[in-house]
Amino acid sequence: MTERPLSDPFTDAYAATGVDIAAGERAVELMRAAIQSTHTAEVIGGVGSFGGLYRAPGSSGQVLVSSTDSVGTKVKLAIALDRHDTIGQDLVHHCINDILTLGARPLFFLDYLGIGKVAPEKVASIVSGVARACRDHGVALVGGETAEMPDLYAGDDYDLAGFIVGSVAEQEIVDGRRVAPGDVVIGLPSDGLHTNGYTLARRVFAGDDLGATVEVLGSSLADALLAPHRCYLPLVAPLLPRGLIHGMAHITGGGLPGNVPRCLPPGLGVVFDPSTWTVPPIFRLIEERGRVARREMYRVFNMGIGFVLICGRDESAEALGTLDGARIIGQVERCGESQRVRGLA
Amino acid sequence: MTERPLSDPFTDAYAATGVDIAAGERAVELMRAAIQSTHTAEVIGGVGSFGGLYRAPGSSGQVLVSSTDSVGTKVKLAIALDRHDTIGQDLVHHCINDILTLGARPLFFLDYLGIGKVAPEKVASIVSGVARACRDHGVALVGGETAEMPDLYAGDDYDLAGFIVGSVAEQEIVDGRRVAPGDVVIGLPSDGLHTNGYTLARRVFAGDDLGATVEVLGSSLADALLAPHRCYLPLVAPLLPRGLIHGMAHITGGGLPGNVPRCLPPGLGVVFDPSTWTVPPIFRLIEERGRVARREMYRVFNMGIGFVLICGRDESAEALGTLDGARIIGQVERCGESQRVRGLA
Repeated sequence: MTERPLSDPFTDAYAATGVDIAAGERAVELMRAAIQSTHTAEVIGGVGSFGGLYRAPGSSGQVLVSSTDSVGTKVKLAIALDRHDTIGQDLVHHCINDILTLGARPLFFLDYLGIGKVAPEKVASIVSGVARACRDHGVALVGGETAEMPDLYAGDDYDLAGFIVGSVAEQEIVDGRRVAPGDVVIGLPSDGLHTNGYTLARRVFAGDDLGATVEVLGSSLADALLAPHRCYLPLVAPLLPRGLIHGMAHITGGGLPGNVPRCLPPGLGVVFDPSTWTVPPIFRLIEERGRVARREMYRVFNMGIGFVLICGRDESAEALGTLDGARIIGQVERCGESQRVRGLA
Repeated sequence: MTERPLSDPFTDAYAATGVDIAAGERAVELMRAAIQSTHTAEVIGGVGSFGGLYRAPGSSGQVLVSSTDSVGTKVKLAIALDRHDTIGQDLVHHCINDILTLGARPLFFLDYLGIGKVAPEKVASIVSGVARACRDHGVALVGGETAEMPDLYAGDDYDLAGFIVGSVAEQEIVDGRRVAPGDVVIGLPSDGLHTNGYTLARRVFAGDDLGATVEVLGSSLADALLAPHRCYLPLVAPLLPRGLIHGMAHITGGGLPGNVPRCLPPGLGVVFDPSTWTVPPIFRLIEERGRVARREMYRVFNMGIGFVLICGRDESAEALGTLDGARIIGQVERCGESQRVRGLA
């Protein structure tokens, strides 16, 4: 199974918003045995991966990789601003990135839309955005469900979840087992918050005019906060056949410290060097306006790094040459279990 | 793609609950071209099926069949009664039945749980129910997401959606093309409302003590309304290799008239004979208490028939001999487009 990360990580600032990751972790412990009891011989790997791995019948060495996710409370922002054309792109790109961490290319997608009141143009805008992102990346949108439930979703509210299936040759699964001390951590730039941290970000800007231009952003808050989740498939796919990559992580809820350890073998950690990249203005604005501690910022937001690759130092020049905007942001070292991430404030 | 049916069909009584299927149909029309533009050569079939069909790479004649659905506002009943142990079973069985209509056996499943407040025992109860139903039918639960969103789900509310992937040999896909005039329609009994009609049913019993025993039901309303969705896989699977079945339909939102035509070729319809089965007491109670017209009842509820198979008259004895509780409830005939279902009041 994939880990069941909550949309947003627990931090001091988050505690005030009502999101409680400790409760989520207790829930996972309570259900773990029941989930594992369903794992037939066709299931590969264990808990904590970004995608589920399944050997389909007659699949001649190909493994199916699947994942499900939502865009979290970014939908609340889309609803408040009545802009629904890019939320589907957020969803599809998020899911593509999740299975990409295992080396998988996407095949097909399904979406689930729970909504209080079907306004045809709004629903079509949401789902057409899903379809556009699918088409951009060669993914077939083979199914979907729109459930109109006025008793569950108030007013204009809706929730949007996606489900992706991709495939990878079993020999080429990237599962982190080749990660070794001395490997370098390469960061790829994000395009804003992607789909995490919106419960906190919305609190911070609760009283603001989201449409007004903010000088340090060079855009309105609305545009900065709704910037679509970036898809890393076009950048990373050309590297996959070359076998350079030892591990990958998609930086979602939990940030760098919550996600990078998911692709590391036991006993290894990462020492980050935050001086190697510039935190984009939107995060600095949230930090200042919300008086959020830097340490918390790193656990709630991607802080400008949306995807991470790990490879040997000798091969890093080749990877960096292909990856536009990439830079080395840290290094793999041996560590204790409680110290798997260092260098972040 | 699969059709995007709304959870509940539009009827006169439903209009009052705020569910509007006409708006849903307009939305589908608006998004249809965008969705179809994603359909690569690997996608088989068109719109309106119970599952999406995809030829995976290296799949040697096997086709992947996928579907997504939720349990609709049955969750509101589970929440009101604080009973969460069978809602996962509802979800899994619903999805298994959907892809079964195409002849597919389930492989793996993922669940999405959007929730206002993570109470660990409650979440574990919901997901353990999903896992139990998966294990019962040999399905691997390979992934899941719990998204805690206090700003989107009020109080104890949650929504639960599922995604299933199964497979079928391409030669053995049951897509209705062999359905012919004179074929018989075999109905399999349902176990209550399954996962449809809860917005209306909850209105009808809004003032009632759900815990009190109701004589005609032989149980409480709570037990009757929460009865889990039946899984037809164990009954139907043994028939699949024998090639007897021409078409299948899962009786969900839209009832018999909304779902049986989905497995019929153009120009063919079904004449039902309602005297061939007894409508279970829970439906008669809803009809009387809610003063719902019989014609509406057939479009909102399954009325005691949860799954339908169509086969040749000569082979029907063989099918009936295997299917416990099954009976012939109608016959296929030629018809005009507006008359695809007859015989239901």
